[in-house]
Amino acid sequence: MPDNRSLIERVAAGEPGAVARAISNVEDGKAGTSDLMKGIFPLTGRGLVIGITGSPGAGKSSLVDKLALLYRQQGQRVGIIAVDPSSPFSGGAILGDRIRMQALGLDKGVFIRSMATRGNLGGLARATVDAVAILDAAGYEKIIIETVGVGQDEVEIVKAADISVVVLVPGMGDDIQAIKAGIMEIGDIFVINKADREGTYATEKELEALLSLASRADDWQPAIIKTVATENKGVDELRQAISAFSQTQLQSAKGLERKRAIARWRILELLREQLLKRTLAQASTAAVLQRLTDEVASRRRDPYSAVDEIIARVVNSQ
Amino acid sequence: MPDNRSLIERVAAGEPGAVARAISNVEDGKAGTSDLMKGIFPLTGRGLVIGITGSPGAGKSSLVDKLALLYRQQGQRVGIIAVDPSSPFSGGAILGDRIRMQALGLDKGVFIRSMATRGNLGGLARATVDAVAILDAAGYEKIIIETVGVGQDEVEIVKAADISVVVLVPGMGDDIQAIKAGIMEIGDIFVINKADREGTYATEKELEALLSLASRADDWQPAIIKTVATENKGVDELRQAISAFSQTQLQSAKGLERKRAIARWRILELLREQLLKRTLAQASTAAVLQRLTDEVASRRRDPYSAVDEIIARVVNSQ
Repeated sequence: MPDNRSLIERVAAGEPGAVARAISNVEDGKAGTSDLMKGIFPLTGRGLVIGITGSPGAGKSSLVDKLALLYRQQGQRVGIIAVDPSSPFSGGAILGDRIRMQALGLDKGVFIRSMATRGNLGGLARATVDAVAILDAAGYEKIIIETVGVGQDEVEIVKAADISVVVLVPGMGDDIQAIKAGIMEIGDIFVINKADREGTYATEKELEALLSLASRADDWQPAIIKTVATENKGVDELRQAISAFSQTQLQSAKGLERKRAIARWRILELLREQLLKRTLAQASTAAVLQRLTDEVASRRRDPYSAVDEIIARVVNSQ
Repeated sequence: MPDNRSLIERVAAGEPGAVARAISNVEDGKAGTSDLMKGIFPLTGRGLVIGITGSPGAGKSSLVDKLALLYRQQGQRVGIIAVDPSSPFSGGAILGDRIRMQALGLDKGVFIRSMATRGNLGGLARATVDAVAILDAAGYEKIIIETVGVGQDEVEIVKAADISVVVLVPGMGDDIQAIKAGIMEIGDIFVINKADREGTYATEKELEALLSLASRADDWQPAIIKTVATENKGVDELRQAISAFSQTQLQSAKGLERKRAIARWRILELLREQLLKRTLAQASTAAVLQRLTDEVASRRRDPYSAVDEIIARVVNSQ
């Protein structure tokens, strides 16, 4: 507790070292995480959280870097969380950090962190929203979550932002249709990056057609912004669209509904993780899990009755 | 129970309608799922489960279709599960099915199903491995899991296959590095599709260099196969590499370790889901969750203490 309190104080003072340590703690799910986050939470609510997702190869990193530079020119502090697929072997997260450092890393007003899961206990989504809260508490005015993957978890994470930006790129073939289908509904703003390429017009028309079919819960008409991030084209238009959304939508009744959906999702994510953690922490569970794993692997037992046994033990021991 | 028993019998007889219904039941998490899967499990273990993942635009669908056609020519029945990101709005899963139907849909020896999650209770990974077990029980000799997304869940799902194939495409820019980093460790076989394109040689050399750095737990040297799926080039080489892996690796001591890792993951996934389900099913939870959601959304409460309250209630009521 005293440790956490001083860490919380140092986070509140905006010390990058404390922010980094706090994020590591929540990422590793250390014992003091719950107390740490209970202390962090009252300090949050000032930063704007921008989620950016899209297909690999769409140039999200360049776009995020250029957007961050714009905010820096306005004197704002920017936190960037890059959510990477897990990679114990090749250190994907470290690779990502290293590349970013070249553009922004020497600027003390920018905090960059890659996050990846380790092991199979999940918790990436929970750790990411906790990291965002820590950056918020530390006074970063803009917090950008960039997802490298395009999967279920990544979609959930971007949905938990105040505003969601979906980045597309012209003419990526058939698979992009499926990706679009999955992320279409979550975009408050759509960016067509690399918009100097062939196929930009077709992608824009296709996007407009898809958006005209969508019925949003709010009255926001998602903007379509064309950018060439590497040449800094269109990035200020993106900044303006983000600003317009945050000024009109976040404070509305629909904005409150969105906050409720996010709150509910956060509670359920955390509940799922805590319930599993509590069960695995019970004295006998490790040995039982070991035995059941062997039985399921050798096909002497099905996973459902294995789980029945674990739950029956938990209930009986309480 | 009688319903489930006849459904299990019809699945065992290989009836496509029963397979479809059983998969819908596990996907929706219906009440009888546990009994259904307990009956299905003893019938499994004969099919070979092939996981195929890779970046969007890599041409995975074409590759899967061509591979399935090869197996069909050998007289084998093939089940295909395509894992899509969630899409209540635009029906991504339906879109995927429709496209596939043109190539393979009229062949009764092929069963194609897209899977997507609905809502935020998760369970996509669990539902996918259950669907694979149902296809296995129904006598499909080859079961292909194709992931459309490239995220955490998708990587987990592909890791749960007997053999994992990672599909790359030449020259997709910087983001592909991050994707590669995340999926490099899970590939038993690597495919460079669209290998008639510029950059194929560079991608192959890069891949060889990355693989030479990896130290696998087994002694398998991952094959690199070049394909042009749309022209049916290299697909038979892929089939042969899959066959070589399944004949040498699956029965080895390392193969058993892998089965144990998969069994453990399945138990934990299912346990996580069942614990949450049990908690949410308790009489008072819905109202409490509603109130806590309001409190967290309006920042009167942090998610951690909200979850503490729910868990305290569960423990006290048992």
